[in-house]
Amino acid sequence: MHKCSSASSLGPGGLDLSKAFFAPISGGEPPSDTKRPTKITVVGVGNVGMAIAQTILTQDLADELALIDAKEDKLRGEMLDLQHAAAFLPRTKIHASLDYAISANSDLCIVTAGARQNPGESRLNLLQRNVALFKHIVPPLAKYSPDCIIMVVSNPVDVLTYVAWRLSGFPANRVIGSGTNLDSSRFRFLIADHLDVNAQDVQAYIVGEHGDSSVALWSSISVGGVPVLSFLKRQQIAYEKETLENIHKEVVHSAYEVIQLKGYTSWAIGYSVASLAWTLLRDQRKIHPVSILAKGFYDIDGGEVFLSLPAQLGRNGVLGVANVHLTDEEAQQLRNSAKTILEVQSQLEI
Amino acid sequence: MHKCSSASSLGPGGLDLSKAFFAPISGGEPPSDTKRPTKITVVGVGNVGMAIAQTILTQDLADELALIDAKEDKLRGEMLDLQHAAAFLPRTKIHASLDYAISANSDLCIVTAGARQNPGESRLNLLQRNVALFKHIVPPLAKYSPDCIIMVVSNPVDVLTYVAWRLSGFPANRVIGSGTNLDSSRFRFLIADHLDVNAQDVQAYIVGEHGDSSVALWSSISVGGVPVLSFLKRQQIAYEKETLENIHKEVVHSAYEVIQLKGYTSWAIGYSVASLAWTLLRDQRKIHPVSILAKGFYDIDGGEVFLSLPAQLGRNGVLGVANVHLTDEEAQQLRNSAKTILEVQSQLEI
Amino acid sequence: MHKCSSASSLGPGGLDLSKAFFAPISGGEPPSDTKRPTKITVVGVGNVGMAIAQTILTQDLADELALIDAKEDKLRGEMLDLQHAAAFLPRTKIHASLDYAISANSDLCIVTAGARQNPGESRLNLLQRNVALFKHIVPPLAKYSPDCIIMVVSNPVDVLTYVAWRLSGFPANRVIGSGTNLDSSRFRFLIADHLDVNAQDVQAYIVGEHGDSSVALWSSISVGGVPVLSFLKRQQIAYEKETLENIHKEVVHSAYEVIQLKGYTSWAIGYSVASLAWTLLRDQRKIHPVSILAKGFYDIDGGEVFLSLPAQLGRNGVLGVANVHLTDEEAQQLRNSAKTILEVQSQLEI
Amino acid sequence: MHKCSSASSLGPGGLDLSKAFFAPISGGEPPSDTKRPTKITVVGVGNVGMAIAQTILTQDLADELALIDAKEDKLRGEMLDLQHAAAFLPRTKIHASLDYAISANSDLCIVTAGARQNPGESRLNLLQRNVALFKHIVPPLAKYSPDCIIMVVSNPVDVLTYVAWRLSGFPANRVIGSGTNLDSSRFRFLIADHLDVNAQDVQAYIVGEHGDSSVALWSSISVGGVPVLSFLKRQQIAYEKETLENIHKEVVHSAYEVIQLKGYTSWAIGYSVASLAWTLLRDQRKIHPVSILAKGFYDIDGGEVFLSLPAQLGRNGVLGVANVHLTDEEAQQLRNSAKTILEVQSQLEI
Repeated sequence: MHKCSSASSLGPGGLDLSKAFFAPISGGEPPSDTKRPTKITVVGVGNVGMAIAQTILTQDLADELALIDAKEDKLRGEMLDLQHAAAFLPRTKIHASLDYAISANSDLCIVTAGARQNPGESRLNLLQRNVALFKHIVPPLAKYSPDCIIMVVSNPVDVLTYVAWRLSGFPANRVIGSGTNLDSSRFRFLIADHLDVNAQDVQAYIVGEHGDSSVALWSSISVGGVPVLSFLKRQQIAYEKETLENIHKEVVHSAYEVIQLKGYTSWAIGYSVASLAWTLLRDQRKIHPVSILAKGFYDIDGGEVFLSLPAQLGRNGVLGVANVHLTDEEAQQLRNSAKTILEVQSQLEI
Repeated sequence: MHKCSSASSLGPGGLDLSKAFFAPISGGEPPSDTKRPTKITVVGVGNVGMAIAQTILTQDLADELALIDAKEDKLRGEMLDLQHAAAFLPRTKIHASLDYAISANSDLCIVTAGARQNPGESRLNLLQRNVALFKHIVPPLAKYSPDCIIMVVSNPVDVLTYVAWRLSGFPANRVIGSGTNLDSSRFRFLIADHLDVNAQDVQAYIVGEHGDSSVALWSSISVGGVPVLSFLKRQQIAYEKETLENIHKEVVHSAYEVIQLKGYTSWAIGYSVASLAWTLLRDQRKIHPVSILAKGFYDIDGGEVFLSLPAQLGRNGVLGVANVHLTDEEAQQLRNSAKTILEVQSQLEI
Repeated sequence: MHKCSSASSLGPGGLDLSKAFFAPISGGEPPSDTKRPTKITVVGVGNVGMAIAQTILTQDLADELALIDAKEDKLRGEMLDLQHAAAFLPRTKIHASLDYAISANSDLCIVTAGARQNPGESRLNLLQRNVALFKHIVPPLAKYSPDCIIMVVSNPVDVLTYVAWRLSGFPANRVIGSGTNLDSSRFRFLIADHLDVNAQDVQAYIVGEHGDSSVALWSSISVGGVPVLSFLKRQQIAYEKETLENIHKEVVHSAYEVIQLKGYTSWAIGYSVASLAWTLLRDQRKIHPVSILAKGFYDIDGGEVFLSLPAQLGRNGVLGVANVHLTDEEAQQLRNSAKTILEVQSQLEI
Repeated sequence: MHKCSSASSLGPGGLDLSKAFFAPISGGEPPSDTKRPTKITVVGVGNVGMAIAQTILTQDLADELALIDAKEDKLRGEMLDLQHAAAFLPRTKIHASLDYAISANSDLCIVTAGARQNPGESRLNLLQRNVALFKHIVPPLAKYSPDCIIMVVSNPVDVLTYVAWRLSGFPANRVIGSGTNLDSSRFRFLIADHLDVNAQDVQAYIVGEHGDSSVALWSSISVGGVPVLSFLKRQQIAYEKETLENIHKEVVHSAYEVIQLKGYTSWAIGYSVASLAWTLLRDQRKIHPVSILAKGFYDIDGGEVFLSLPAQLGRNGVLGVANVHLTDEEAQQLRNSAKTILEVQSQLEI
């Protein structure tokens, strides 16, 4: 074990200046451990993990932030770079270590680590390597923070959330994948940009499997509380199904586009996960489309599969799933995704 | 007991719409009590108490806010008025009751209640009536939240903080009076206004007894890190001791002036106490001049007396007292205040 | 004219300490007036005006805040009470005066002043007195800030917004009444409280005349993007029209209840107007139900009448009205309100 | 010219849905250009530029954000990645282009672009290449935003701020280098970490040339308003000059350390520059150590040189320089730095 620390050499001649500077009052009690701070652990300090960590820090969501990675240099560099901003931010304790012990007593553990695809490697092989990686990540997180919520961001997020759930032994309400929360934000941005409205006034969900086979819920789109499809119908405005599909394609494409243009995505996923962290830790009971144990919803059966559905989130993790209406076609798409994922899962050794 | 509630009649035909709207996931666990929210109780919903409560709400400092008062109508009116703003604020549970049971498991209890002076009533008699009032307030707070921090705002704040400490049976680090935190802010505003700088760049303490006999620490004034007195000396700028005393007089006078002009003070004390709440609950380890058990500092002896000193505050309450230099005259003023307060306290029946 | 100021006596011996403390750099230019700060004026420093002013201050929405009232003492008291919090807030210039000159170059002028009903006075007589009051308020605001947006909060808000529009000579997009923005928040809170969701996830509009004859748009209610009425229909959950009406009655009643219990409403209207100020000044293009010139919408005719409709707001004031579907009954209610208001307006001398 | 845009294909069949969705009110005026939004331009979308842009976005400091870079793909990728977060943030217009026209009417232009050192290249040669780069950056910024403030972050920051000042033709108060603002934050963090206090309670300046020859002002260190050096003296706590120098060395070293460990610095400089942007644009009149035209201070002569001094900043840029006391040795160090920089500058062709 090696813990990155920022021990300073300030003490003149080894003196503990802090003790000279502050005197205790009489009748005080020793510091108590019962008043637990809000603590978030981020595993993986790549572009995604750091965008999440930095956004959490800027938005003052935690009292303590623990960073874990296997690359010691990068890890210490990122910790120092955040710590150096102390004068510009509320006081937050920032730790970093190779050792999962620093994650102890976290309220939320966010996993962003993942293996990269080797040239010529099959997706299944890559996935199996990620399972191997998660075996080194999830059990220690669960051991050091048995009451925490685990949030999986690594891709393929739906399968890996299932893997994390299995490896953690946690009840299903405390293992969540970031899923289509970001896809839905992209969807809302495109609609808002077109209508020149505030994206926060746009409601619109993309659910199901994160990525190409995600499902856009057209009937869920409303702007400022006005359902768009029935508005178009009332206004006798004709629209082609193809037009709607093009918007969805643009959402799916935009992730690829960002990766192609800048090499990775970071800022939007950072804000997306920070918004989930806030809802969870401050018990906001808001509804987000995230990857959860979907068995039993919309006749999904055949096994335990994680897919994104509009879930109400709070301090206890997943509080419930909003009873959103799906067309037969949309529900069938969900079941198809579930079936594909289950087939993949059946080939994994966990 | 009567608990103000906001039960709505929404349920169509007695149906629990919430259960129809949200479905539980399989494998979820029941909500857990181990994940305790951040909770603040405010006792007294007069102008001061409500300015504090509303500022705490706007600044999103707590997950739960409990309001307690003896006037049932006023209490319920204030609760509803805050609740009606729900759409404009992060979700915070707001309770109100005559019954101290709703304060259970608070992290911070803020006491603003106080008796008003009757015509012709002596200050000692008024104080004794306030002690009687505190006997109905402090023990139930301590009973329902044995680990909380108690913050006294009621005046005379130094004596009543001592009274609250005695009645609570709490260790001294967890009973704090708002003291001269506000006087110091007024001091900093006047200096900043004159120099046309940001008041947050001005460091300046008023310590000691809250009110007329408070002590301005001239040597503590710095602007943007530049100590003002030594600056004046270096620049060979002459200044009269009387000039400095006039600033202090203006600080002391300004509280009276606001009361005379608008009938009470509210906004500034609201912000002042909210800033203390933030430092305490988010473990910011910042230094504030607040009323604490001052015995032993600056040769204050003769008994247990609370006076404002620059204290480092955090999740454990008072963490220590900054070793600020006082001139002999300033220290003597502190001891005089201590002596006066101790004489008053000796006449009280607690 | 008397301008409240907070001139301090800091300068030792009349010296301008600021000039000694700071030295100018060479090659600097004189301060420029082209970089105009964001400025808000609040007319009326009663409970409503001050709750608005303080919330604007806490949320850091303006660089300058001007307070205007006819009661000089109260005005100066409120100004000082806000200024004394300077050390706890970002720097905001706070002015107060009886003279409208201090409102010059405001971006937003918020009018909360209003006459109180005398015993036995008819509503029409009271209204005519308010018109007389507005003749002293609105023309000077329009004169000193010809490009500003005027927001009317005084009641009856719809008629007085019309009066302000007439007196200002402003185009209709720059005169707005706070209208049913608060009623809608109360509506959303009651629904959210019942469903135990975040009120920010609830979309629901109350439109029309602020007060008893307001119109609840049932079809507009959605929770997390799920339209509630069609949800109930799909789930074959029966509900009585009476049940829905009861919720609306509760909204209408709750304003009266707060007034009856605490004597006035303040906090919720403060947050409501601050949220409008933010949308307007930061050009958020969000949709709020506010009182606007409603002529021509939903076949409202017969004259110029202000009623609340879901309006998109931004830096230019009212940007447009969302094309929300109303049932025939709802549209008829709107037209009835319009007719009643127009009759009142025809009796006014403006 | 190529402007990155995010044109969406939402419009069904070419219809302008926005016009159908929103109806204009009668009597409205056309949108006005006089209400200018707050706009920030960031030149260079590398790690530093993007950390600045993202922190500005998270902290909601601007209504419009323009990104400029020479790499079209990277630029568009970063713009999209920020835009995709729209649902999680207040509405901010985000543009990106190779063309400086999109910077028009900025309030603040932040330059982070810089050439990288080629193997074996002399520092002077590198600097001359950066001058060439600035000739393509600064004049168009000055042309499109003649009233803006220019903030230089590129290194060597002091010389390049001088270069930007010369190329812009701006008065000296509107050209500022980020200078030692970050060095000072690192200094404050190290002191705060050692004393276990909040870094915001620590005042401490590093001034002069950014980098190895910066000057730590020991006499400026205070904690919670308590000057540390005189505290140590009063407490008769001996300290070695060497100890103090070690802290300074640690500050200087820590920038190198972060670069060595993670390859670059980003987060801390992002927060540092965002804090400067806030002080400038919101006219906070706070004091920051930044690189300004230092001629004439502390007997610096021989020419126009930019060095970091504690400057009061506001809407007009540099408002003044705080009259901080320097020891003879410290002042001599400043003059030495000035002389070195002037020699370099004399060799540059600008």
